[in-house]
Amino acid sequence: MATVAPGSTIGIIGSGQLGRMLALAAARLGLRCHIYADAPGPAFDVASAHTIAAYDDEAALRAFAASVSVATFEFENIPVETVSFLSDLVPVRPGAKALGVTQDRLAEKKLARELGAMTADYAQIDSAADLAARIDAMGGMAVLKTRRFGYDGKGQAKLGHASEAADAWAAIGARPAILERFVSFQAEASVIGVRGIGGEFTAYDLVRNEHRDHILHTSTVPARLTAQSEREAVQVTRAIADALDYVGVIGVEFFVLELSRREVLYVNEIAPRVHNSGHWTIDACATSQFENHIRAVAGWPLGTTARHSDAVMTNLIGKDQNSWPKIAAEPGACVHLYGKNEARAGRKMGHVTRISPRNA
Amino acid sequence: MATVAPGSTIGIIGSGQLGRMLALAAARLGLRCHIYADAPGPAFDVASAHTIAAYDDEAALRAFAASVSVATFEFENIPVETVSFLSDLVPVRPGAKALGVTQDRLAEKKLARELGAMTADYAQIDSAADLAARIDAMGGMAVLKTRRFGYDGKGQAKLGHASEAADAWAAIGARPAILERFVSFQAEASVIGVRGIGGEFTAYDLVRNEHRDHILHTSTVPARLTAQSEREAVQVTRAIADALDYVGVIGVEFFVLELSRREVLYVNEIAPRVHNSGHWTIDACATSQFENHIRAVAGWPLGTTARHSDAVMTNLIGKDQNSWPKIAAEPGACVHLYGKNEARAGRKMGHVTRISPRNA
Repeated sequence: MATVAPGSTIGIIGSGQLGRMLALAAARLGLRCHIYADAPGPAFDVASAHTIAAYDDEAALRAFAASVSVATFEFENIPVETVSFLSDLVPVRPGAKALGVTQDRLAEKKLARELGAMTADYAQIDSAADLAARIDAMGGMAVLKTRRFGYDGKGQAKLGHASEAADAWAAIGARPAILERFVSFQAEASVIGVRGIGGEFTAYDLVRNEHRDHILHTSTVPARLTAQSEREAVQVTRAIADALDYVGVIGVEFFVLELSRREVLYVNEIAPRVHNSGHWTIDACATSQFENHIRAVAGWPLGTTARHSDAVMTNLIGKDQNSWPKIAAEPGACVHLYGKNEARAGRKMGHVTRISPRNA
Repeated sequence: MATVAPGSTIGIIGSGQLGRMLALAAARLGLRCHIYADAPGPAFDVASAHTIAAYDDEAALRAFAASVSVATFEFENIPVETVSFLSDLVPVRPGAKALGVTQDRLAEKKLARELGAMTADYAQIDSAADLAARIDAMGGMAVLKTRRFGYDGKGQAKLGHASEAADAWAAIGARPAILERFVSFQAEASVIGVRGIGGEFTAYDLVRNEHRDHILHTSTVPARLTAQSEREAVQVTRAIADALDYVGVIGVEFFVLELSRREVLYVNEIAPRVHNSGHWTIDACATSQFENHIRAVAGWPLGTTARHSDAVMTNLIGKDQNSWPKIAAEPGACVHLYGKNEARAGRKMGHVTRISPRNA
């Protein structure tokens, strides 16, 4: 299959920090980037070209496709139609199929189950009546989530009884939803895998994640889970990537439970893109998740996913960014700021990765 | 002293690969870059703004100064007048003094000697007659070098006898020159140091360099020279930086000789900028030379110069770039391509850093 040679331009849909870090990784490889987004963002500052247009602007999409050798996206909340439209003009990796499944929490869960992975118990919810009927059957606390366009805890409501169904249904905007039985987990973990254009696959070491207010707070490697869990998590991630004919980096989030004294993994979410819990790879690996995504999308050989250091990545959310002078003064702390102008509450402004000699 | 906060813009004079890698490092810290150069170059692709203008275009320089919080340069062959002019409008780091001395091989050698460092024997040459007179006095082979604007072996002529003086003088363009006694060295080494805005100083581990056709071929860390040499090389580098009121990364190249069975260092060249022999720091250190230069110039605390890995950096010169698919397939090889369009002979197109677990 044809590879995208140095000097060529890669199209990236989305202008956020993930696009920015993808563009920085592409630059290392001698590749240019053209960012397409419906609003300016931090990726614009480090790309050689950008387009501001709606995701359904066919003329703008045509011009974008004509200017790039291959396209990818940095976030999953773009219309599948945009990717389908572009795919007729230029290769888009990963493709519309991967995007379609991962945009829908229900399709995601179904796929995981079909592939033999475990998930929380769930039910499809299309009305308040559905919800009232299912919540009691589930027995205990559950989380109602919109099937589409939720992130960082947005579009979610917790409930435990049919009497709360109407409120919960209203709270998520009365949209097609999935009800998931509340999982009492010991830990959260994720796999950052990458699948190449020829189907080859490799994954970084399992990551242990901690969330605060539904937003990722820290990612730690090594995750200190069992070797069995690590193997299984990577196998599941690979099976998902294979099933989606995936090309690029994929992030799969897991809940880690203790059932009958055994460590058990439930698939929680699939992200068809580079993932916040993989940011530590910039500083602790020879090839970062961003470079590996670009390599895959460009048809290059995948880079190593081995790490040379242990790492703890901490997100800088909202006003956390103000601590940059203190973090910058900390020996060995790798500080990453995204160049966003306004430090709104809950907004990801940067991250810091603290690396230490490899211990495991 | 005031620091340049994230979101601000740093001006970089020069559009080459060093400017490109500086801009990539600045982006990690949430800083924007404005590149000023007399011709387009690879740095343009990753900067948020650029100006193409002559280095003596006062209107363009004024507009550039007004758009940035601080300025620096990525190569030393810009007129000192450009830096002096800008310095009245905006801080330029390092400053005109450092640039002036390091543009002149004679002033460089004098400074090194004044600071107690050793250098090859040298003589100031202003005419063919000077040269004829000094070459015989020197006894043996010597190298005639233009005092200014030489790099990668350009502007140099070897000679051993007064009868060759006229030819050598013509060969370097009959320009003010320095005659250096030929040094029979065991190795070449360099120190990449960084001096902060408050005078604080730190240096990366000593680098062993190998040149081919007068162009850097490989840089290896650890250098495997004596601890005494390493200490001395760092001390000399710091003394030079202090003497020049330097702010930013400075590269000092040394010849390593064996005299009376002792390892001895001669200062060869001083580079007032990030240095090719420091490229390995991108992949083997938490803070690269590029980030440390940006930190110093922006008045931030310096980052660590410790390395987590051993490293061998190899330049990709001219058609070497064509081997990128092979290098990209090599596990753990960190490939860096500069996005230059034309692979002219002798042109630095990229580099590859091979890292391995730290062994010393």
